[in-house]
Amino acid sequence: MPPFDVPEGDPFGPHNLPYGVFSLPGEDSAPRVGVRLGDHVLDAGAAALALGSPYASLLARPTLNPLLAAGRTAWSDVRRALTAWVSVPSHRETIEPLFHPLSSVTLHLPFEVADYVDFYASENHARNVGRMFRPDAADSLTPNWKHLPIGYHGRSGTVVVSGTDVVRPSGQRKAPTDAAPVFGPSVRLDIEAEVGFVVGVPSAMGSPVGLSDFREHVFGLCLLNDWSARDIQAWEYVPLGPFLGKSFATSVSAWITPLDALDEARVAPPERTHELLPYLDDAAEEPGGFDLRISVSLNGHVISEPPFSTMYWTAAQQLAHMTVNGASLRTGDLYGSGTVSGPTERERGSLLELTWNGRDVLELPDGKRTFLENGDVVTLSAWAPGADGSHVGLGEVTGRVVAG
Amino acid sequence: MPPFDVPEGDPFGPHNLPYGVFSLPGEDSAPRVGVRLGDHVLDAGAAALALGSPYASLLARPTLNPLLAAGRTAWSDVRRALTAWVSVPSHRETIEPLFHPLSSVTLHLPFEVADYVDFYASENHARNVGRMFRPDAADSLTPNWKHLPIGYHGRSGTVVVSGTDVVRPSGQRKAPTDAAPVFGPSVRLDIEAEVGFVVGVPSAMGSPVGLSDFREHVFGLCLLNDWSARDIQAWEYVPLGPFLGKSFATSVSAWITPLDALDEARVAPPERTHELLPYLDDAAEEPGGFDLRISVSLNGHVISEPPFSTMYWTAAQQLAHMTVNGASLRTGDLYGSGTVSGPTERERGSLLELTWNGRDVLELPDGKRTFLENGDVVTLSAWAPGADGSHVGLGEVTGRVVAG
Repeated sequence: MPPFDVPEGDPFGPHNLPYGVFSLPGEDSAPRVGVRLGDHVLDAGAAALALGSPYASLLARPTLNPLLAAGRTAWSDVRRALTAWVSVPSHRETIEPLFHPLSSVTLHLPFEVADYVDFYASENHARNVGRMFRPDAADSLTPNWKHLPIGYHGRSGTVVVSGTDVVRPSGQRKAPTDAAPVFGPSVRLDIEAEVGFVVGVPSAMGSPVGLSDFREHVFGLCLLNDWSARDIQAWEYVPLGPFLGKSFATSVSAWITPLDALDEARVAPPERTHELLPYLDDAAEEPGGFDLRISVSLNGHVISEPPFSTMYWTAAQQLAHMTVNGASLRTGDLYGSGTVSGPTERERGSLLELTWNGRDVLELPDGKRTFLENGDVVTLSAWAPGADGSHVGLGEVTGRVVAG
Repeated sequence: MPPFDVPEGDPFGPHNLPYGVFSLPGEDSAPRVGVRLGDHVLDAGAAALALGSPYASLLARPTLNPLLAAGRTAWSDVRRALTAWVSVPSHRETIEPLFHPLSSVTLHLPFEVADYVDFYASENHARNVGRMFRPDAADSLTPNWKHLPIGYHGRSGTVVVSGTDVVRPSGQRKAPTDAAPVFGPSVRLDIEAEVGFVVGVPSAMGSPVGLSDFREHVFGLCLLNDWSARDIQAWEYVPLGPFLGKSFATSVSAWITPLDALDEARVAPPERTHELLPYLDDAAEEPGGFDLRISVSLNGHVISEPPFSTMYWTAAQQLAHMTVNGASLRTGDLYGSGTVSGPTERERGSLLELTWNGRDVLELPDGKRTFLENGDVVTLSAWAPGADGSHVGLGEVTGRVVAG
């Protein structure tokens, strides 16, 4: 019987154990840390208390932040303990009542977001954008692109958990033929399929975090949809970058997959075409990429399968770059990879690219699309290779567009 | 005797009463809310407790956030109570022991910063930048500048209180003549003299905050120095805006001046040259500008006096713009005005403009400067007109540059 008897091959088996925050219906409704196993969630804090575990202080909490702050040794110890709790038969009687069906719980934003940074690390994506918006340029990449992972700060206060409706933003837009900007609901609402990295251990101002310290600071990853209003963005973004075209909502999955669950998914990033400055040179580091197979669906139909392994800049390089000027890290910092786009048309991570800025139409069983319509539901899901041919499932991130 | 007997004309008299957070040396060292009067600070929570005030729950706290969240009515009530506590002779015996000389306390970051946004609202500044970096453009402003207050998100985790040393950042820079970028300490470290606005009352996602709700959400203002590494910024900022050129440090004054202390300083903004969309049209609103006279000093020598009254976009317009897409506000959100520059050379709020990107040299009694050298101390101070010819002092923001 579940949950100990998760089916062989379940991508959320005991080899995975992602973390989230959930609440139960009714009176006992306080949010608490949960760990997913199959289609159940374990009340991790209650389990720790029931078994007299010293990790109760990290797990019997309403957010993941205390666990995030506890650091690499604690992360490994807690994971080892959880693996034992859900595997060792003698714990079964104690643990089993602390599982709840996923269908019966509410999932919450799993951590308090400190700063949110978004990168631009897919060469295919950056080249597609360059070809669309600077068709006459000699190079579809800007001159800095191969020398540093371009990024910018986003709005951490509007990071929401999967399942939260996304209100179509209003704002200014101006077509080249318009004499003046017009105001109204965005007519080019888009998605960006990304992976988000969650910082656990802070760093001091003035102390850069090197490539090899990635695992000491980053706890895990999630899926992230960086909703984008292309018309608002196009009018506002010169010279200081995206602002209202992005800040209305950023959705993250409810489950944070610890790096420790993804050891088998580490891969080398694409071959570097330019010499890197020493603080970004990862030739001597562990493989910096992750072989995550992302799937983007619109109203239930898969429209793209972006391969995360094609990302030019790695999460470790992004962390090193983000701190090389002495900027500090805080527990709960979140950084997005940037839109994940592979080399082929079916691997593009935004409607902007999939429809070539609205020139082409996506034919779906329930109608045609260029950008999103109200009522549309977008879902990102992903898996990664685990040991012995297993799959490690990443929690999905989904959101429905509603009228403002 | 002090502190009740603040000298007539003191810019920090009972008409001002800015809020901060301080701690005492020694065992009783917990940070707590303080209110400045002359050159003393009142332990506001202790005063509230001693007088049996219901506001102790807002004031006997380690940050201003609970007071910020309490809202406009509470802000006015608390201010009225504080005015009475420091003015009514019968309170003197109770209150006087709760004052501490400023020289004896440590001032802390007065609130927990949620999101930090920086604007670009001075027409003089934007035109100076345009003339320097796009000398061949027909208009020194970008096409969007007069239609919306351009802004971007900055790093809230590196907002520091006045007095914190600023470590010179390292990063990539590339001169046009360089074949590839080089790495090292910034050689064009600059300041930006700004005013910061502190949000108290949150708003819901999907619900824009209109111009007339400015006072319901914004508690007060501070001085802000948006330290900038021009060489890092120049190489990184296309296409997604400033990132590491700014994120290493942003300094704010230790004192937050409540809007209620600045009623006499409200002025109309400059005449609008372009028709504004309705959500930004402030013709029927209370005057949106603030007549703040800022002074920038470098190693004790005044190098500029930027007039805040010249800012084209007001703080209310910035708030309305920031939320018009449905982005929510949180208690502790901070937004900067952008560099304040007046029309004359002596009114420019950055070394970039004062030295015309290093072309001109500032002659100071202790040496020549284009950009900042290690050991340099930059201080912003300001005052605003109060009732009956009085001055309302804003707390200074100061910082010293140290080697990385």
